[in-house]
Amino acid sequence: MLKDEIKQLNIGELKELCGKLRARIVELTTKNGGHLSSNLGAVELTVALHYVFDLPRDKVIWDVGHQTYAHKLLTGRDDLMENLRCDGGASGFPSPRESDCDEFITGHSGTSLSLCLGLARARDLKGEDGSIVAVVGDGAFTSGEIYEALNDLGDRPTKLIIVLNDNNMSISRPVGAMSKYFNRLRVNKKFVDFKSGVKKSVSELPFVGTPLVKTLTFTKNKLKDGVVGNKFFERFGLKYYGPYDGHDLSVMTDALEQAKKSNGPVIIHLLTKKGKGLTEAENAPNLYHGISPCDESKSLSMSKAAGDALVALADGHEIAVITAAMADGLHLTEFAKRYPERFFDVAIAEQHAVSLAAGLSKNGVKPYFAVYSTFLQRAFDQVADVAINNLPVTFLIDRAGAVGADGVTHQGIFDLSYLSLIPNMTIASPKDGRELNALIEFSLHFDAPLAIRYAKSYSHDFGSCAEVELGKWEWLIKADTPVTVLAVGKTNELALGLKRASVINARFIRPLDRKLLDELNGVVITVEDNVLHGGFGEAVKNYLYGKNKVINFGHKDEFCDIRDIKKTFVNSGLTTENIQKTIDAELFSLEKSRKV
Amino acid sequence: MLKDEIKQLNIGELKELCGKLRARIVELTTKNGGHLSSNLGAVELTVALHYVFDLPRDKVIWDVGHQTYAHKLLTGRDDLMENLRCDGGASGFPSPRESDCDEFITGHSGTSLSLCLGLARARDLKGEDGSIVAVVGDGAFTSGEIYEALNDLGDRPTKLIIVLNDNNMSISRPVGAMSKYFNRLRVNKKFVDFKSGVKKSVSELPFVGTPLVKTLTFTKNKLKDGVVGNKFFERFGLKYYGPYDGHDLSVMTDALEQAKKSNGPVIIHLLTKKGKGLTEAENAPNLYHGISPCDESKSLSMSKAAGDALVALADGHEIAVITAAMADGLHLTEFAKRYPERFFDVAIAEQHAVSLAAGLSKNGVKPYFAVYSTFLQRAFDQVADVAINNLPVTFLIDRAGAVGADGVTHQGIFDLSYLSLIPNMTIASPKDGRELNALIEFSLHFDAPLAIRYAKSYSHDFGSCAEVELGKWEWLIKADTPVTVLAVGKTNELALGLKRASVINARFIRPLDRKLLDELNGVVITVEDNVLHGGFGEAVKNYLYGKNKVINFGHKDEFCDIRDIKKTFVNSGLTTENIQKTIDAELFSLEKSRKV
Repeated sequence: MLKDEIKQLNIGELKELCGKLRARIVELTTKNGGHLSSNLGAVELTVALHYVFDLPRDKVIWDVGHQTYAHKLLTGRDDLMENLRCDGGASGFPSPRESDCDEFITGHSGTSLSLCLGLARARDLKGEDGSIVAVVGDGAFTSGEIYEALNDLGDRPTKLIIVLNDNNMSISRPVGAMSKYFNRLRVNKKFVDFKSGVKKSVSELPFVGTPLVKTLTFTKNKLKDGVVGNKFFERFGLKYYGPYDGHDLSVMTDALEQAKKSNGPVIIHLLTKKGKGLTEAENAPNLYHGISPCDESKSLSMSKAAGDALVALADGHEIAVITAAMADGLHLTEFAKRYPERFFDVAIAEQHAVSLAAGLSKNGVKPYFAVYSTFLQRAFDQVADVAINNLPVTFLIDRAGAVGADGVTHQGIFDLSYLSLIPNMTIASPKDGRELNALIEFSLHFDAPLAIRYAKSYSHDFGSCAEVELGKWEWLIKADTPVTVLAVGKTNELALGLKRASVINARFIRPLDRKLLDELNGVVITVEDNVLHGGFGEAVKNYLYGKNKVINFGHKDEFCDIRDIKKTFVNSGLTTENIQKTIDAELFSLEKSRKV
Repeated sequence: MLKDEIKQLNIGELKELCGKLRARIVELTTKNGGHLSSNLGAVELTVALHYVFDLPRDKVIWDVGHQTYAHKLLTGRDDLMENLRCDGGASGFPSPRESDCDEFITGHSGTSLSLCLGLARARDLKGEDGSIVAVVGDGAFTSGEIYEALNDLGDRPTKLIIVLNDNNMSISRPVGAMSKYFNRLRVNKKFVDFKSGVKKSVSELPFVGTPLVKTLTFTKNKLKDGVVGNKFFERFGLKYYGPYDGHDLSVMTDALEQAKKSNGPVIIHLLTKKGKGLTEAENAPNLYHGISPCDESKSLSMSKAAGDALVALADGHEIAVITAAMADGLHLTEFAKRYPERFFDVAIAEQHAVSLAAGLSKNGVKPYFAVYSTFLQRAFDQVADVAINNLPVTFLIDRAGAVGADGVTHQGIFDLSYLSLIPNMTIASPKDGRELNALIEFSLHFDAPLAIRYAKSYSHDFGSCAEVELGKWEWLIKADTPVTVLAVGKTNELALGLKRASVINARFIRPLDRKLLDELNGVVITVEDNVLHGGFGEAVKNYLYGKNKVINFGHKDEFCDIRDIKKTFVNSGLTTENIQKTIDAELFSLEKSRKV
């Protein structure tokens, strides 16, 4: 089924199509993992959008973009979707490389309205036509950038449609005042019947999306002022319509058709159900937000190790834990349950999360901000502020390094670089869960900014680890050889199988263990799960400049869309075999020069 | 006059104190430069805060922090203020190093509420007491982080006071929907007289801050619902009081006393006048937002060169210019006047600005985002998104390198590092206004992300510059010597006076001119107005590793609070004399080794 054929279908056929899309999405995510709940919730919305709009002339930007599976299936990508989130297959996020119905590669929250406003203003400047639609979840509405865009839109309004896809869920639970507000719109909303003047609460109506309500709402805006609470959006110059049943095709297509005719900015509020159509997912949408394919379960979880360490630390210590809507993915639910008063889920708001941590730390509570590496980029400036103030905030940076299936927008391969350039910052990386635990214990009494970065999982328990001392590395293999390998974090697993080389776990990336480096003779090989530019290896190379030969292993200077961690490592030459080859070549060359 | 003595004064004496503070602020900023208008506007507010609250037990966080001169004068820093914004003197921003009445070093917009919420939650966890006050300008209210914090505050409210210091100005003009909203609160506000039930518009009352209105508003919140428009803040669980005259001490102290007693979050809306008390500043507050001391005027303006180049380019080319509230400082007013439909001042919202640029570029309009180097840090993640999508957005990065008087929070010495680590990014830096113009012309047809970074001013016109070609450097001095200096941007001025060395203007920082580097023999010296870590010099060193000896000059791995550009250069060894010494030492050593 292609998007253009949709326009020929009647309502019954559209419903049938939705059923097929839903079945296909369940099938695909069961096989390849992915964002099941949000995609199931957006099926009717997607069909309605394609029914009403004409892509790519009209443009639809999905905020974050993890809810685009149905959209992909409708835009000629059924084959690609067969290998969803795998190499050669469709990305789990929008991608202009796959289809001209995707405008941008996206993956982080809260950018859609800004992007749409840019598209719309360019359209206006060029005197062109066409609709531009931002589909924003209620979760993404907690991102500051959305408000910056709303503020600008209100300043200079233009024709633009925001679809508020309100499933009353962020990634895990709904968070914040805006969520409460949406909830009020949802349940306490009253419509004025302009004929009778009688107010009816939504609960008295069959459902908010019935034709009756629809007609009432659209009747020349007469009802606008009768709708409780829409003032919030009107502040920003938006005409607010809704809420509507986001699974009722007839209502949605009518609403979108009306919105299409408007010459100014419009917001359509849809109520959807995450996981719609799949009972398990409807009942526990957070567990089905992102599901993993089966074969990933063998590895050991670093996230769980971090979560457990925080729980262990909480008893007797004045600590607090902050997350930006990632409690589940970061294994913080146990902490949240046991210490709710010290657990702060601030919604998708990394900037605020970091400054909140700064405030807590200044007033004597030790904050741990647990965050995915790629999302901490959003708060780079606030991290720098923490460092300028030299505050004892600890960043627990999960999903560092290659991330696999989520692809290019989610790679955690830049953090060592963007954190290393910040003065006052200390950066550590553990090789396994045990060491992560030791580093978290160390952090408790560390009185300055500290970043602990680690991959989601590890596959080898090293059994024990040396006591943590600031800036001190750990010898793993001390061999009688002129080649030393310095491995960071997860890459210690690669170093395990190496022969004819000493191996050091370079537990601290910043500061370097200069004392140890001073003692090293011969060739030094660095290995890191990070881009080379500005990372660990280059810092070592600079320090040893003129003294040792240094060879760096790490990721290339390019955005990497490989959807498999191991393949990403292979692509970057990060394999035991490859490092061994280099060791042997260096030994051979040393041997040769000795003979000459 | 010290803060504790204030509490003993009567209203007449407080007014007298305000007069003295105002005179002192004019005196100090005339001598040393600084944020005159905003400080004059905050005098009564500062006195009222110190009258009501007891610092440092109570805590006041000034958003951005450039409006703290009166606060500094009242907290024992009169001597330091004598050398305001100079080395050894007071910072132009809050600094805990100067006084325990300052909690954080701040300088960027929109962080205060997050910081306060952190302080407040730590207070609550420890079972302590005390008021925590965020003073936020209406300009800062356009920053996304403020909304992220409001959303979180609304989720889990606590005792906290927001003072909305509404001078109806951002840095230059008021921007955005929020500004319109504040304006509506300001002029269309109606109060209900709860005795008579009669609505009176503010304009009918003597002034909004009269005791009558004050009494009305505070009478057990009965009037709450009668105040038009306060619903916006109530969405976030805030009790809204105001607006009040922010220059009426009696009204303000009463309002703050009431707010102090509240157990939940409260917002006090004050109307102030930027430049209050100085006619010139009242009439043109944007011109007096940041004033420079007299002796800076000799240098040539890079900002003006950029502004002029954009105006020249606009005719006949589909370009647009974006600023985040910095039209004056960036010399964009002429462009804004001539091409208002292609000029977008998005308020203090760098994240949105970058994504807006992405949208424009995707739809065929070439966007230029002109921004201070330090503020672009706020949009690091969005810049990475532009790069992932490889969109032709041009970043005009002003105030790069050492910035002088604004000090540690405003240094632009990190951009080469945080931009260089981003794949797909091209980075250039011009040595003078002429070359900046040439680079901007080059950018027009450059089809990928491009960052052009430059200092605010330059002191030497190099007369001509070679044609711009991607990644190609420019020979300035080709001498018969084994030492070559690679200078970036402003540091070419240092290289001018060098002897016995060739000099290359390394116009592109990324990509490097590898062809030229391959041809270089002997010693290579790099010079850049950026931290060494992850910057230009280290990239060169890595590339030439094992081939040439490379020596890097740049800023140290530390936050630098030197308030003078020249002194900052000296502190980092960035002087002609110092580089010459290195050249001569290298020549001597080469000579010696040749003899041996």
